[in-house]
Amino acid sequence: MIDSAVPSSLARKSMSVTATDHLWLHFTPHGGQDPSEIPVIVRGEGAYVWDARGKRYLDGLAGLFAVQVGHGRAELAEAAARQAGRLGYFPLWSHAHPTALELAERLATAAPGDLNRVFFTVSGGESVETAWKLAKQYFRLTGKPAKHKVISRSLAYHGTSHGALSITGIPAAKQDFEPLVPSTVRVPNTNFYRAPEHAGDEKAFGRWAADQIARAIEFEGPDTVAAVFLEPVQNTGGCFVPPPGYFDRVREICDAYDVLLVSDEVICAFGRLGHDFGAQRYGYQPDLITTAKGLTSGYAPLGAVLISDRVAEPFQRDGVTFMHGSTYGGHPVSCAVALANLDLIDREGLLDRVRDTEAAFKSTLDTLRELPIVGDVRGAGFFYGVELVKDKATGETFTPAESERILRGHVSPTLFESGLYCRADDRAEPVIQLAPPLICGQAQFDEMTQILRDALTSAWSLL
Amino acid sequence: MIDSAVPSSLARKSMSVTATDHLWLHFTPHGGQDPSEIPVIVRGEGAYVWDARGKRYLDGLAGLFAVQVGHGRAELAEAAARQAGRLGYFPLWSHAHPTALELAERLATAAPGDLNRVFFTVSGGESVETAWKLAKQYFRLTGKPAKHKVISRSLAYHGTSHGALSITGIPAAKQDFEPLVPSTVRVPNTNFYRAPEHAGDEKAFGRWAADQIARAIEFEGPDTVAAVFLEPVQNTGGCFVPPPGYFDRVREICDAYDVLLVSDEVICAFGRLGHDFGAQRYGYQPDLITTAKGLTSGYAPLGAVLISDRVAEPFQRDGVTFMHGSTYGGHPVSCAVALANLDLIDREGLLDRVRDTEAAFKSTLDTLRELPIVGDVRGAGFFYGVELVKDKATGETFTPAESERILRGHVSPTLFESGLYCRADDRAEPVIQLAPPLICGQAQFDEMTQILRDALTSAWSLL
Repeated sequence: MIDSAVPSSLARKSMSVTATDHLWLHFTPHGGQDPSEIPVIVRGEGAYVWDARGKRYLDGLAGLFAVQVGHGRAELAEAAARQAGRLGYFPLWSHAHPTALELAERLATAAPGDLNRVFFTVSGGESVETAWKLAKQYFRLTGKPAKHKVISRSLAYHGTSHGALSITGIPAAKQDFEPLVPSTVRVPNTNFYRAPEHAGDEKAFGRWAADQIARAIEFEGPDTVAAVFLEPVQNTGGCFVPPPGYFDRVREICDAYDVLLVSDEVICAFGRLGHDFGAQRYGYQPDLITTAKGLTSGYAPLGAVLISDRVAEPFQRDGVTFMHGSTYGGHPVSCAVALANLDLIDREGLLDRVRDTEAAFKSTLDTLRELPIVGDVRGAGFFYGVELVKDKATGETFTPAESERILRGHVSPTLFESGLYCRADDRAEPVIQLAPPLICGQAQFDEMTQILRDALTSAWSLL
Repeated sequence: MIDSAVPSSLARKSMSVTATDHLWLHFTPHGGQDPSEIPVIVRGEGAYVWDARGKRYLDGLAGLFAVQVGHGRAELAEAAARQAGRLGYFPLWSHAHPTALELAERLATAAPGDLNRVFFTVSGGESVETAWKLAKQYFRLTGKPAKHKVISRSLAYHGTSHGALSITGIPAAKQDFEPLVPSTVRVPNTNFYRAPEHAGDEKAFGRWAADQIARAIEFEGPDTVAAVFLEPVQNTGGCFVPPPGYFDRVREICDAYDVLLVSDEVICAFGRLGHDFGAQRYGYQPDLITTAKGLTSGYAPLGAVLISDRVAEPFQRDGVTFMHGSTYGGHPVSCAVALANLDLIDREGLLDRVRDTEAAFKSTLDTLRELPIVGDVRGAGFFYGVELVKDKATGETFTPAESERILRGHVSPTLFESGLYCRADDRAEPVIQLAPPLICGQAQFDEMTQILRDALTSAWSLL
């Protein structure tokens, strides 16, 4: 049965033929794919989405780390329509509009410390691009024109446009597109489960990991390094949380070398970790924060860069212009949706909800540790990774062939067939990523854990 | 009087103080700006927008070359709300959704030749980033892995993210952010008014300009060049139309050297030149088309890259993945808005309207040629540039100081105060850019020409 949301022109022919004929899916192999297997998602409500055949899935990934308030929220649709009917588009080039003004004030108020200026973008990738450009010009304006390099962490994903991709720490995502922007450098991430040093001592490991940033700055030359880009909790690799003291030490290092600390919170802001911003959870003060996704719960494309007074200051001088902008950055409809979304998050107390229930979420997921294939369960807030291993005692991981057969061949399709939408990611060691809407409760924690338990149990039997 | 659209939290304090306190406008100097002079646009209807004081402006720039169907179109607001209520967000990563499927089919049908695949993005800049990445991987897959460079034209604007900015031909927009992606090369544009060769012979000039692309490919080494990015009519510098035969010759050159021809139609598609795509107007066949803006009339952020069968083919092979995508590329609400927008363009016959009225538009603007300050009026469709000169006989342009005083100090504010929103751009020789909504008619042509006449007449008296 075709869902009634399917447009009539499509219902007339096979949806899947159209999909492969014309629509090029993102990050998706085309070859060898059975067109009828491409899922077509047609509807969402709360924590669930439905495909064109009417089958329901628990949205374990909030779309793509975005849909904080859940699907089908009429308030957000109405906010979009109200603004679109009034002013459906106007750029922020030399002109302002009311929803951008109100949202800028609201974000500046919510942000930690003196992050008082807001540069709107259309996406997380554009926020990262913008933050790098700001950092480069900032140092040209303050007499350190050679400071332009960026330090980021191994495996960290920061986007796919050429600048953001250069900062991204996933070589396989970059190799087909080299050369990229020169002068970005990788340091170790905070994967304590596979700590190469100080295993078993989280604090010493955190100190060591932070100190690698100082070593990289020293090696590159402090006069050449503009910024360090770090997620509060790193997504790729599977929810690497910061060890105690890590960000305190990073802040010290950035101050010592006059390097900007950019907190890339495209995933972690707006409740994902139970706070407005991840930096607040871990008690550090960034110079810039990059955001997107949860800002609108994904209902409309919008990102923002929050900028400290110190970074903004030289741009206020006579004759200085930050020669940057974009057509859709701060779109009036997107800003209206963001305002309604932040209202919803407030009204429903979703930040409190995450803080109140994250322990229950984590302990439910932790029951998976009894399975022989589960090596680690880690994360914070509503943001977890379950790492799969071949040998629990040694932490031995899968060969590429096993990963293909077990993870892509079995776990991914089985989870989806069982009604759980989430991501099985093997860009590093294989990990199941979970980041559901913030409206979820124990019923959903149980549901996703049970589906995972069944799929991982059957996966183990295939080894 | 504050317009009722202004949110109450803002009305309580001065809007302009909020603007400079928190909202960082795009491409706008902050220093020395009187906060009360930042215009706040609150509402739009048809070809007009209103500011917070209730003052009306003719939108001579369609927002930013985007609002083809005009402002305040209820159909587009309703399409957005309908989709947002049903499925407010889902990514195109391995999954499809109905509005992206339907829109992909529609674009593939409208596109020239065999551009049968559609990769959705969130913006024009992301379309350009995507097209470059496609070109690089295409040649790695087809045994020419060193082909990665891009050729673009002097002054051409292709976006502000690091990849798109590298392709952009405006050095002043790049200098604060170097180093960018290496290996992009500039060739002359088709500014016939200031033709350095073959002045007076448009065809010979076009041949010469196209041949500069061949010379650049030869100089760089054909084995290193992946693509040429060209707008059908180049915006920056002021509507440089292609001389007769230009694109035919470019196509020959691209074929001879196996270089992809990318038609960057972020501005020129969806009716701006009276056709679905600018390539159709000028009768050439690109390998890739990049779009955004008019696709949704700006009501929601969306872009698309249209891909030929030849370029798509190697990506269909087993084991190949185009490792690229973005959270908001092909947003379901944006695709719904695009479908409703294309319906509106069809139903109201806006392509025909542009073709039927462009001669009247041009001849109305041409009456400005009698002013001593007007050197040239050029463009096509609903897309024109009026170039200002100090000496009409010699074409002498303004000094930077004169440009600051006359253009920024007088023309820009006078046009806006007189009720015309457009752009006075002096990134090259000073030019007034005009690209109104496609619903405009003789009344608006007259209105904008009269406002221009008055402002340019008083500007001349200040020289």
